[in-house]
Amino acid sequence: LPHATIRPVILSGGAGIRLWPLSTPERPKQLLALAGERTMLQMAAQRVCDESLFEAPWVVTSARLADEIEAQFASCGLREPTLILEPAARNTAPAVALAALEAAAQTLLLVMPSDHLIRDTDAYIAAVTSAAPHARDGWMVTFGIAPDRPETGYGYIKRGAPLSPGLWRAERFVEKPDLETAQAFLAGGGHDWNGGIFLFSAGAYVEALERFAPDILASVRQSLAGAARDGRRISPDAAAFAACRSQSIDHAVMEHSDRIAVAPVSMGWSDLGSWDSLYETGAPDGEGNVLAGEVLALDARDCLLRSEGPLLVAIGVEDVSVIVADGAVLVVKRGQAQRVKEALGLLDQARAARGSGPQ
Amino acid sequence: LPHATIRPVILSGGAGIRLWPLSTPERPKQLLALAGERTMLQMAAQRVCDESLFEAPWVVTSARLADEIEAQFASCGLREPTLILEPAARNTAPAVALAALEAAAQTLLLVMPSDHLIRDTDAYIAAVTSAAPHARDGWMVTFGIAPDRPETGYGYIKRGAPLSPGLWRAERFVEKPDLETAQAFLAGGGHDWNGGIFLFSAGAYVEALERFAPDILASVRQSLAGAARDGRRISPDAAAFAACRSQSIDHAVMEHSDRIAVAPVSMGWSDLGSWDSLYETGAPDGEGNVLAGEVLALDARDCLLRSEGPLLVAIGVEDVSVIVADGAVLVVKRGQAQRVKEALGLLDQARAARGSGPQ
Repeated sequence: LPHATIRPVILSGGAGIRLWPLSTPERPKQLLALAGERTMLQMAAQRVCDESLFEAPWVVTSARLADEIEAQFASCGLREPTLILEPAARNTAPAVALAALEAAAQTLLLVMPSDHLIRDTDAYIAAVTSAAPHARDGWMVTFGIAPDRPETGYGYIKRGAPLSPGLWRAERFVEKPDLETAQAFLAGGGHDWNGGIFLFSAGAYVEALERFAPDILASVRQSLAGAARDGRRISPDAAAFAACRSQSIDHAVMEHSDRIAVAPVSMGWSDLGSWDSLYETGAPDGEGNVLAGEVLALDARDCLLRSEGPLLVAIGVEDVSVIVADGAVLVVKRGQAQRVKEALGLLDQARAARGSGPQ
Repeated sequence: LPHATIRPVILSGGAGIRLWPLSTPERPKQLLALAGERTMLQMAAQRVCDESLFEAPWVVTSARLADEIEAQFASCGLREPTLILEPAARNTAPAVALAALEAAAQTLLLVMPSDHLIRDTDAYIAAVTSAAPHARDGWMVTFGIAPDRPETGYGYIKRGAPLSPGLWRAERFVEKPDLETAQAFLAGGGHDWNGGIFLFSAGAYVEALERFAPDILASVRQSLAGAARDGRRISPDAAAFAACRSQSIDHAVMEHSDRIAVAPVSMGWSDLGSWDSLYETGAPDGEGNVLAGEVLALDARDCLLRSEGPLLVAIGVEDVSVIVADGAVLVVKRGQAQRVKEALGLLDQARAARGSGPQ
C-alpha cells in the first residue's frame, strides 16, 4: 500500500440543547458560530482540509440538517462532503458503523464530533499523523485530553502500558465518575478525558463490532444494503436502522476491546458543553466580560454577554451569562449553566400541562 | 356659585427613558401597562372618573401621542378627553398655563402626572375633596407623600403652620437635596415628597404666573390666541409656544408664592421612576421574584423578571432586574436602575461616533 490518506468522519447528528437558546433542535450547536466567524462544523472540517493527509470528509448527520451542512461547507470553500443521513438517532456506535461499512477495510477513519473546539490544530494533526501507523497495525486510537478540573460529566480513560512515545494502551474507560473519583483521577494523574475523537481502520472497527455488538453491525449492514443513494447523499434504509440498538461507541466497543490505545494531546480542547465553558474559552476584556453581538456593559464584571440581534445592556451585574437569541432570553448565574436542561424540562412540562404539547 | 366640579388636567407629555427598554420616546411610560392590565394613563384617568366630582379630563400632551391617548381612553370606556397638544416640550409651568388659560378663572384644576402609581384611590380623592374649599379660597394646594427613604431624586416640601386638619402652609420647597439633607428630612419629619399633584383655581395659577413668571404667561397666552381647534383637540401656535421659556411649575410658581398649602396623603404612591421602584411596588412570589410575561425562574431570588414577548429563563440569579422588550434586553443589578439613563447616553455617543446618529 502507498502512504494512504485518512478519511475524516464528522459526527454531526447532535441536537443538544445545553446551549439554548442559541442551539435548538432545528439549529444544533455544530451549526452555530460560537467561537469566531466560522461555525463549529466549519472549524471541524477546516482542521482536516490538508489534501495530502485527508480525503474529503464524510458527515454522518440527519436529513433535516443536510442542506444547511452542504451550504456551510460550500460557503467557506471546503471540499464537498459526502453525507450519510441517519434515519434516526441511535448514538455513536451505529453512526460510526455506517461510515466503517461504506469504507474499504484498510481505510483509516478519523472519527470526530463536529461541535467541539480545538484551538491548536497543529497539535491535533500531529497527534493524528503520529498515531496513524498504530491504527494501521490494528489499534483503535483515542485522543485524550489532560483534565484541568474534576469534571463529572465526561468519560475518563486510564493509561496503561506505554506503546510508543505519546501513546499508551488504554487500561480502562470510566464514564461520568462521581466527584470523589474524578478528584482522585485528577490528583493521581494517568487519566485523560475521552474527547470522542478516534482513529482506526474501518476493518478494525467492523471486527470489534462483530465481536462486541454483532446486532448493531447486522442492523447497520442491512440499512446500508437498502440505502438510497443520490449524488453525495446516502440514505440508509429507515426501518432497518430504526431497529438498531442505540449505544455509544465507548460502551459498544472501546470498553471491551484490548486493542485500544490512548494518545493524550494538549490541543486547546473544549466541548463547549455549556455557557460556562463558552465563557471559559472566550477572550475576556479588561472587566472579565466575554462579549458577542450588540452589547453594552456598564460596570458588569466576569459576565458572558451575547446577543444574536437585539441590543443587550447589562449594568452592575457580576458572574452572570446572558444569552439573547431570536425569541428567547437566558440569564444564568455562571457555574449553573448545566441547569439549562432542567429549565427546559420544566418548560416542556408546563407547556404539556397547558395542552400546547412539548417544545 | 353652586358646588363646582373639578377639571382634571393630566400632564402626559413625558418621554422618559428610565424604564427603557419598555419606555421609548415613541411609547412613553404613561402609555404602558406597568402595574396591571391598564396603562398608567388609563389608571390616572380612572381615578377621576366620578362625574359628581370631576369634569371630563383635559390631557396636555404632544401631537404624536394624540391618537394613542384617545384610543386608550376609548378602549376602557372613559369619557372623551380634550387634548391640548404642546407644540414643544417646555416643562410643566407652560403646560399647566395652557389649561389654566383655557379654563374659566374660578374652575378648580386638579393637575396630575399621568405616569405615577396611586394604589389607594379613595385616600387620594378624599384628600382632593377635602382640599377643594381651600383651593376655592385661593390656596394652591400640593399633595405631599410621606417619605420612606432618603431619596435624593425628588423634591421635598417643608410643612409650615397648620391651616386646617390635614393641611399645612408650605414653608419651603427643596429640589433634589443631597443625601445628608434628605436623611435629615427623613429623621426630623415635617417634610413630604412633592408628587407633582396640585389643586388650585385657574385664576390663582394665572395670577401667580403674572407675578412670578409673566413671560411664560405672555408666551402661552399668545400661543393660545393663535391655536387651531379641531373637535376635542387644541393645537396652540407653535412659534409662540416654542419661544416660551422651559420651566417647572415648582420653580416658576410654587417656590415663590406665599399661598401654597401642602396636604400629605398616604395613598400608596410611587412614581415608578425606575425598574427598582417597579420591583418595590410589585407583588413578589415566594422567592421574592416579581414576574410579568412568559418567564421561568429557576432558583432565582428577589428578581424583577419581565418580558413583553420572548421567553425569558432565569437560573440561579439574585437581585437582578431583567427586562425583555421588542428589540432590546436590559439586565441591571437591583439598586442600580437609575443608571439606565447613563447607559443610553453611552449608546447614543457610540452611535454618533459610528455616524448613525443619536438614538
